[in-house]
Amino acid sequence: MSTPFRHVALFGKYQAQGVRPILEEIAQFLVRCGVEVSVERDTAMNSGWMDFGALSMDELAQACDLAVVVGGDGTMLGIGRELARHNIPLIGINQGRLGFITDIPSTDWRGALAPMIAGNFEQESRSMIEGGVWRDGEQIFQGFALNDVVVRSINPSMIELKVTVGGDLVANLRCDGMIVATPTGSTAYALSAGGPILHPDIGGWALVPVASHTLSNRPIVLPDDLEVVAALVQGKEASANFDMQSFASLLPQDQVRMQRSRHKARFLHPRGWSYYATLRHKLHWHAGSI
Amino acid sequence: MSTPFRHVALFGKYQAQGVRPILEEIAQFLVRCGVEVSVERDTAMNSGWMDFGALSMDELAQACDLAVVVGGDGTMLGIGRELARHNIPLIGINQGRLGFITDIPSTDWRGALAPMIAGNFEQESRSMIEGGVWRDGEQIFQGFALNDVVVRSINPSMIELKVTVGGDLVANLRCDGMIVATPTGSTAYALSAGGPILHPDIGGWALVPVASHTLSNRPIVLPDDLEVVAALVQGKEASANFDMQSFASLLPQDQVRMQRSRHKARFLHPRGWSYYATLRHKLHWHAGSI
Amino acid sequence: MSTPFRHVALFGKYQAQGVRPILEEIAQFLVRCGVEVSVERDTAMNSGWMDFGALSMDELAQACDLAVVVGGDGTMLGIGRELARHNIPLIGINQGRLGFITDIPSTDWRGALAPMIAGNFEQESRSMIEGGVWRDGEQIFQGFALNDVVVRSINPSMIELKVTVGGDLVANLRCDGMIVATPTGSTAYALSAGGPILHPDIGGWALVPVASHTLSNRPIVLPDDLEVVAALVQGKEASANFDMQSFASLLPQDQVRMQRSRHKARFLHPRGWSYYATLRHKLHWHAGSI
Amino acid sequence: MSTPFRHVALFGKYQAQGVRPILEEIAQFLVRCGVEVSVERDTAMNSGWMDFGALSMDELAQACDLAVVVGGDGTMLGIGRELARHNIPLIGINQGRLGFITDIPSTDWRGALAPMIAGNFEQESRSMIEGGVWRDGEQIFQGFALNDVVVRSINPSMIELKVTVGGDLVANLRCDGMIVATPTGSTAYALSAGGPILHPDIGGWALVPVASHTLSNRPIVLPDDLEVVAALVQGKEASANFDMQSFASLLPQDQVRMQRSRHKARFLHPRGWSYYATLRHKLHWHAGSI
Repeated sequence: MSTPFRHVALFGKYQAQGVRPILEEIAQFLVRCGVEVSVERDTAMNSGWMDFGALSMDELAQACDLAVVVGGDGTMLGIGRELARHNIPLIGINQGRLGFITDIPSTDWRGALAPMIAGNFEQESRSMIEGGVWRDGEQIFQGFALNDVVVRSINPSMIELKVTVGGDLVANLRCDGMIVATPTGSTAYALSAGGPILHPDIGGWALVPVASHTLSNRPIVLPDDLEVVAALVQGKEASANFDMQSFASLLPQDQVRMQRSRHKARFLHPRGWSYYATLRHKLHWHAGSI
Repeated sequence: MSTPFRHVALFGKYQAQGVRPILEEIAQFLVRCGVEVSVERDTAMNSGWMDFGALSMDELAQACDLAVVVGGDGTMLGIGRELARHNIPLIGINQGRLGFITDIPSTDWRGALAPMIAGNFEQESRSMIEGGVWRDGEQIFQGFALNDVVVRSINPSMIELKVTVGGDLVANLRCDGMIVATPTGSTAYALSAGGPILHPDIGGWALVPVASHTLSNRPIVLPDDLEVVAALVQGKEASANFDMQSFASLLPQDQVRMQRSRHKARFLHPRGWSYYATLRHKLHWHAGSI
Repeated sequence: MSTPFRHVALFGKYQAQGVRPILEEIAQFLVRCGVEVSVERDTAMNSGWMDFGALSMDELAQACDLAVVVGGDGTMLGIGRELARHNIPLIGINQGRLGFITDIPSTDWRGALAPMIAGNFEQESRSMIEGGVWRDGEQIFQGFALNDVVVRSINPSMIELKVTVGGDLVANLRCDGMIVATPTGSTAYALSAGGPILHPDIGGWALVPVASHTLSNRPIVLPDDLEVVAALVQGKEASANFDMQSFASLLPQDQVRMQRSRHKARFLHPRGWSYYATLRHKLHWHAGSI
Repeated sequence: MSTPFRHVALFGKYQAQGVRPILEEIAQFLVRCGVEVSVERDTAMNSGWMDFGALSMDELAQACDLAVVVGGDGTMLGIGRELARHNIPLIGINQGRLGFITDIPSTDWRGALAPMIAGNFEQESRSMIEGGVWRDGEQIFQGFALNDVVVRSINPSMIELKVTVGGDLVANLRCDGMIVATPTGSTAYALSAGGPILHPDIGGWALVPVASHTLSNRPIVLPDDLEVVAALVQGKEASANFDMQSFASLLPQDQVRMQRSRHKARFLHPRGWSYYATLRHKLHWHAGSI
């Protein structure tokens, strides 16, 4: 079988031992397709399965040209964030309820994977935010986000954030917190907080205030080509969170800076994949109305 | 005084007779700047002021390279929509409360206008929707919108709309109606209906369901480079509205088609103009919190 | 079998011929329980089934002490509204997807109905709105609502409503429309428009503006012991709608008056029925999260 | 002057030294009205003003039959919560922007206060929540709330709460947190989080999920005569907050229990006071529309 891929990195959901049997089957399948296979170190350790090595993320990034992940959206997003800087695409296989990104059911992975390994797939790329926390002109924390950056109060009390875009003042927000979401993140936490859904082709971020004291501080979609800065004006205890990486001790005057990363996460889907079909499924638009 | 403009078209708010004195002053000022001035026909008729002619929109479009409008956002948007296809920029002077677009107060029009006529201004352009209504494969209505296209039930009963983007099904919406808003329109009706604010540089539309029966049918920001089609699946009486132009008798199977116009409305602002400052002012973000 | 009921009125979903077989079975079952049965006139006509008479609503109201309805929430609410003034309770059997009120599945009506006819049931009553339209001090339209009263623009243009409660000004609303919902109606149209859910024991109405121009005009829960009046201040074409009964030609200065009816709709449910369980089911809270 | 009051307790905003001059003037005025005056201990300490004693809250509660508070809503609510169990009414004078409760401007306190001390006032009472945290069947924290009880995640990660009312399951909420707000609190944090406004006469609480993962978990108004219990099902770090009193280390299985207090906070207002007028002012409904 002809395939555009040489070497696949195999990942299993973190600490999910039960994932080993399906990983083994997938590895055998890929080998039969003429593709080399390596297993990620933690996946190998946790499953006690060493037949295909136990490579670090860096080693995989050097060697591989495709990643196959068995897990949910959380696992997929974490690995996608890492592999983005190496431009390696991912395929996601889900053992439970399908996700926004992990759209191949484990019950039919073979039927879906075969044509994809043969080069027959849809491809999409997702923008990412990179940035960090600056104090007195120095960077004291660095982060990448494929979903969102959340600046929020730790205590149940308001914080005040001064938000600028490209140096231009947007607003002083008095709120529980603030989310800057990528299109990928727009269907995650930002949606719960009242933000809009952003199609992945939109070159923008959704700036979503959380529990803003000013009721007209509604979600804004900002262009993604200018730096967004949120400075803590007031607030005793606040944190900055790039996806799951947190800086938990923001001080007044600290700046959380966010800009579009030059890297993008790349996801491969079976032919016929539709972004909107995924929305319909995940948001239960099929479930009928009240 | 040196100026990049040759010939200014002067417009006054529709049916506002009181607008004549300020129009006369502006005309005299412009003449002194060495710019030719023509007055739009309805403005001349309504104010009974014929000193600078009474030209039709088409005549103005041929002759002029700038429009100065005295009126509110509604007047400005209507004229902007017309002049967009001739690529003529507009300056807005507001006699009442400042608008999103008409940002020069009539109390200080001279201080603001002088540098602008001398070529010192900020420029921005706003995307528009063009489209219409199709029945049995034929176009039966045509419309342009600088704010939004609204498809809605006339009776207090639900309609069902099948929405596609580039031929790809988005959703079957059971709702009172649906708004497709440009960035300009995102701070108008769409905002009242729960939509997000879209910065004018965002290449997208806000698709905002109105009173959707499915609670998870949340606003979506769609890319503006594909045709959006809303087909009436079910509903006794429905209308399609491109800004204020209405087609009031949609039948089941009728399609409302919308695509990005190749024309853009161009607005000039005084140096230092800020989109975000306008938001803060118009949405009362300054008014303090609850 | 001992039963507290003497005479049951049987109703079938309007224009649903397929409902006859189940109605016949229910009638036979009731007769065997020692209860007299009469069939509502339209139900009898539409199904061509005259074995148990064809009584008018008034005749049923005189003769019967229980109504059994086969249909959805819409049917049930319409009949409940009529029977409320006669204090006759209803039981709802649903042939399709269960409703908020019609909570007995047609697949198991016998198991559910038997204990209820024997007197073993939960009972709840729902408040109603009565009122109408006043012009120049005279009532020109009368309406009852079990769900809601909706005052709304017919055209896609704003109306202005002056809302008072007990003579005290609440707000001048500039909006598409306004909903005054009972607790029963709070899970219908008002919920789509952004209103809260009101538990049936709450002595209040949800006043929900639809697409209000003032973003802070949020839903309010008003006490139900004072008259609510919405006067049309401005607006070319507007309608007042008490459930499905519409008055479609409101003029400026017309008043829509609403007060709590002294009648309540009474619904009987199987033992163990839970309001919250119905919410969880109907609003898909079980469906998992995004 | 005849007055129904014998002895007024005087309170100044916490740590606001500048409040002394107006307190002195008010004290002199009250004395001239024939009313005894005592100053609260912290107020006396902070302002260094001992002419009218420095009584503890308990001493004031024994001696006084009216409290006059100079400060904002926060100060007023804190004192109102304390005095509720002694059934002592409060009058609020605001030095800054008027509040929801503190509605007498310091610029005209004399004109407003004179008739009130003479017995000419509007009176209203506000319901309160009392409850606490239970672990393994034992109460480990007690709290009172005039605004709200907030159960929320400390980290930026979801918690799961099982909410029951009178023992009946409402929902398992997966969310950032949950607010149970009194009518008084419905215009505070709960409003920012998307809740409805509850008129003070509504016998209910607004249960408002914060950033719920299930989009249809909308705010619900619950009757206030049954105990509401939120049990932490899942979540690493969560807190329970009764107004500003916090219990910061909730563990899984802990229960936060809430019931209507038998005490009510009592507020006095000048004749003509209107709840709705306060809403219009505080929510800027006058500010015009977008």
